[in-house]
Amino acid sequence: MRIELICSGTELLTGKLNTNAGYIGGKLYDIGLELSAVIDVSDRKSEFEAELKRALDRSDIIITNGGLGPTFDDITVETAAQCLGVELYRDESVLDDIKTFFQKRKIKSFTKNNEKQANILKTAVVLRNKNGTAPGQMIHFQHKDSQKKLRKTLFLLPGPPREMRPMFDEFVEPFLKSYTSVIKKNEIIHTAGLGESFVEDLIKPVIDNATFGNNNVEFGILAHSAVIDIKYSVSGLDEIAIDQTMGNIRYEIENLLKENIFGYGKDTLSSVIGGLLKEKKKTLCLAESCTGGLIAKKITDAAGSSAYFNGSIISYSNFLKMKILGVKKETLDTFGAVSSQTAYEMAKGALEISNSDIALSVTGIAGPGGAAKEKPLGLVYIGIASKKSVETYEYNFIGNREEIRERAANTAMNLLRLAIL
Amino acid sequence: MRIELICSGTELLTGKLNTNAGYIGGKLYDIGLELSAVIDVSDRKSEFEAELKRALDRSDIIITNGGLGPTFDDITVETAAQCLGVELYRDESVLDDIKTFFQKRKIKSFTKNNEKQANILKTAVVLRNKNGTAPGQMIHFQHKDSQKKLRKTLFLLPGPPREMRPMFDEFVEPFLKSYTSVIKKNEIIHTAGLGESFVEDLIKPVIDNATFGNNNVEFGILAHSAVIDIKYSVSGLDEIAIDQTMGNIRYEIENLLKENIFGYGKDTLSSVIGGLLKEKKKTLCLAESCTGGLIAKKITDAAGSSAYFNGSIISYSNFLKMKILGVKKETLDTFGAVSSQTAYEMAKGALEISNSDIALSVTGIAGPGGAAKEKPLGLVYIGIASKKSVETYEYNFIGNREEIRERAANTAMNLLRLAIL
Repeated sequence: MRIELICSGTELLTGKLNTNAGYIGGKLYDIGLELSAVIDVSDRKSEFEAELKRALDRSDIIITNGGLGPTFDDITVETAAQCLGVELYRDESVLDDIKTFFQKRKIKSFTKNNEKQANILKTAVVLRNKNGTAPGQMIHFQHKDSQKKLRKTLFLLPGPPREMRPMFDEFVEPFLKSYTSVIKKNEIIHTAGLGESFVEDLIKPVIDNATFGNNNVEFGILAHSAVIDIKYSVSGLDEIAIDQTMGNIRYEIENLLKENIFGYGKDTLSSVIGGLLKEKKKTLCLAESCTGGLIAKKITDAAGSSAYFNGSIISYSNFLKMKILGVKKETLDTFGAVSSQTAYEMAKGALEISNSDIALSVTGIAGPGGAAKEKPLGLVYIGIASKKSVETYEYNFIGNREEIRERAANTAMNLLRLAIL
Repeated sequence: MRIELICSGTELLTGKLNTNAGYIGGKLYDIGLELSAVIDVSDRKSEFEAELKRALDRSDIIITNGGLGPTFDDITVETAAQCLGVELYRDESVLDDIKTFFQKRKIKSFTKNNEKQANILKTAVVLRNKNGTAPGQMIHFQHKDSQKKLRKTLFLLPGPPREMRPMFDEFVEPFLKSYTSVIKKNEIIHTAGLGESFVEDLIKPVIDNATFGNNNVEFGILAHSAVIDIKYSVSGLDEIAIDQTMGNIRYEIENLLKENIFGYGKDTLSSVIGGLLKEKKKTLCLAESCTGGLIAKKITDAAGSSAYFNGSIISYSNFLKMKILGVKKETLDTFGAVSSQTAYEMAKGALEISNSDIALSVTGIAGPGGAAKEKPLGLVYIGIASKKSVETYEYNFIGNREEIRERAANTAMNLLRLAIL
C-alpha cells in the first residue's frame, strides 16, 4: 500500500521548516506503515495540481497538508475538487463552527475570506477542527483512470501543527491502523557519548546476526549533534518470533553500549533527566553562558519540569557571572570566562544560590567571534556540581554557532544524566 | 527549468526535521529560481532508486541530500552510479582528505567504513567537504531516454547541515546563478501584533493593484506563532520596472502596517532587537518563567549578542523569583506566580540585579498542567521594565505547550522591540 504526503505552502521558499511531515512520518512508522514519499510543493496552482494528480494516480492513500486557510493562496480544496471532478458546496454547519470559534476567542476579525473555509467537497466527510477554523476533509474515491477500480482515500489536513496533529490523531491514525496486516515492530535506541562510526562498528555483529532468520530486520543509524540513534524494525507474521528478535537485538545492543544508551523511542535527554531527577527526588539548576538558554529551553520542553527544575542563570555577561553566581573577579581575570575554573565556579554558584541538589554549567566559544589561538572556536567547558563535589570537562566541538551550541547542550545534558544515574 | 531536491534518510521515520530543504529552497528563491519539488524518501534502496530515476527523467537539475555517510544505509553514491550507468572508482586524494580530517581532529575512530566515502562516480567533479568527511559530487549527464539530448546536472550533497550548507554555497549556488535569465526579485516583510486574516484584509488593495501591470507579481501570507510574513515576488525582463514595482508594493504595505512591520528578509525578532539595542547602546536582561529559556535562546541565536545581552534569570521556582529577582512573597501569595504583579516585579528585579537598561519578563501557564478556572491554559503576563517605568501586558494564547511558549516568546519579543523603537 502506497501512502503519500503532499505538503503545499511556502516553507521551501522562505527557508522555514516543515514539522508536519516528520510528525506524520513518525506516527505511520509507529503503527508499522510507512510514507512512500513526502512531496513539498509551493502553493502555486499549477505546481500543486500536478503533484496532487500524480499522487492520486500512483498512491492509495494521499494526505495533503496546508492550503486550507482563508487567504487567496489557500487552494487545496478547490484543486482537490477539480482533480477528482467533484463539486463544492458551502457547508452551513461548518460555517457556524467557524463563527463560534471566532466568538469564543473574542476575535472580531471574521472576514469574508473566512467563509471560504466552509467550502466542502460533495463526497467528503468533514473532519472537525477543534483547534482552528479550517475543517479537514476525508474523501473516498475511485480514480477515473484506475483499471482495477481500487478504492483510494484522500485526506485534506490543515497546515498549522496545533490543528493538524490532533486531527491526524483523531481521524487519520485510526483509519490507517485498520490497514496494517503484516506485524511490524520498531524501536529507536538513543545513545550519547560515542561517534557515529564507532557506534556502527560496535553493533556490527548484532546487525550481521539479526539479518539471518525468518523476520525482516532493518537497521539505521542517525546522528544529531552528539546524539546517535540506532533504529531497527522487525516485521513478519509471527508476533512471538518478532518480539523475540526485538528482545534479542535490544539485549545485545544494551550489552555493547551500556550506559551510553540514554533512552528509547520518544525519550529525549530532557525527558530522561526529568525522570531521573523525579525518581531520586533531586532538583536542578543551570548556569549557562554560550548555550544562552538552550539547555533550559530543552529541560522545560518537558511538561511538569517545574517539579525538579529550579531555573537557570544565563550569565552572558561577566558582571552577572560575578553578581549572581559568585564567580571571582580573579578567576575571570586570570583564566578567562571560558575556562575550567569559571565553569567550576558557575556550577558551584548555581548550586548554592538556588539551593538545588545538582547544578550544571556551560561556558564556551560558540562563535563566530570570540575565538583566539589558545581558545579556539568550539572550546567548551562544562561543570557539574553536587553537594559533594564539582567536576569539570573540556570539549572541542566543530561546526557553526548553531551546531556548537546544540552539541554543547546535548553533551552537557548527557554528562548531567550520567552524574545522576 | 525544473529543479528537484531529493532528501534521503530517516527524518520521516523518526519524526525529525529536515532543515536542509528549507535552506536550499530559500537560497534558490533568493536568486530567482525555484524548487519544483522536494522529495523526502527513506534510505531504503528501492524507494530511493525509484525517486532518483524519476527525478533524473523529469528534472533538469537534481540535487540529492544525504546518504553519503560511512554506514551501510548510506547508498546515494552507488545508487546514482547505477541509475546513470557510470562506474565508481576509489579516489586516493579524497581518501587522503578523509584521513587528514580525522587526524586534524585527533579522532582515532577511522574505520574501514570511512573508506567508502572516497568512492566517486567516474564522470563526477569532486566537491571538497571542508566540514566533514563525505565529499559532494557534481555529475553532468544526458539522460539515456532523453530525446532532446538535454544536458542535465546531478549534485550529490552530504546530509549534515554544517557540511551541506557551505558546500551548497561554494559549488551549487554559483552554478545555478548562471541559469537565471528572467529577472526575479522578492522580498519578505515580517509583521507581528496582527492576525493573519486581518493582515490580508489590510493589504488586499495592494495585492489587487499590484497584479495589474507588465510584471508578474506573486503574493503569499504565512503565519508562524504570532509572526505573520508577507512575501511577494516580481519577475520580468526590465529590471528598472521590477525595482519600481517592488518599491511601490513595499511603500504601500509600510503605509498600511506601520510599526507592526519589524523586518525584511532574513531579519528575525532577535536580530532586529539586537540591532536596535546596539544602535541605542542599551543592554537587556530577561526574567523568564513559562518560556523557560526560549527567549534567551532566541536572543543568543544572533552572533555578537554578548554586546547587548547581559543574561536571563530563568526563575522557574518561586524561590528563585524571590531570591534573585526580589519578587515579594506577599505578591506570590496574594496574586500567584502567574499574575500581572509578578510579571511587574520580575521585570523590575531583572533590571536592577543586572544593571541593564531594559528588562523583559514572562510568566504564564504553558500547560498541560497548572491551569485553573480563573487562570486558564495560555494565560501569559509580560512585563517590560526600563529605568523610567514598568509596563505589564496580559495575553491568552491558544495551542499546546510548545505553541503557547512560542507565541509567548514572539509576542514578548515584539513588545520589547516596540519599547525600544
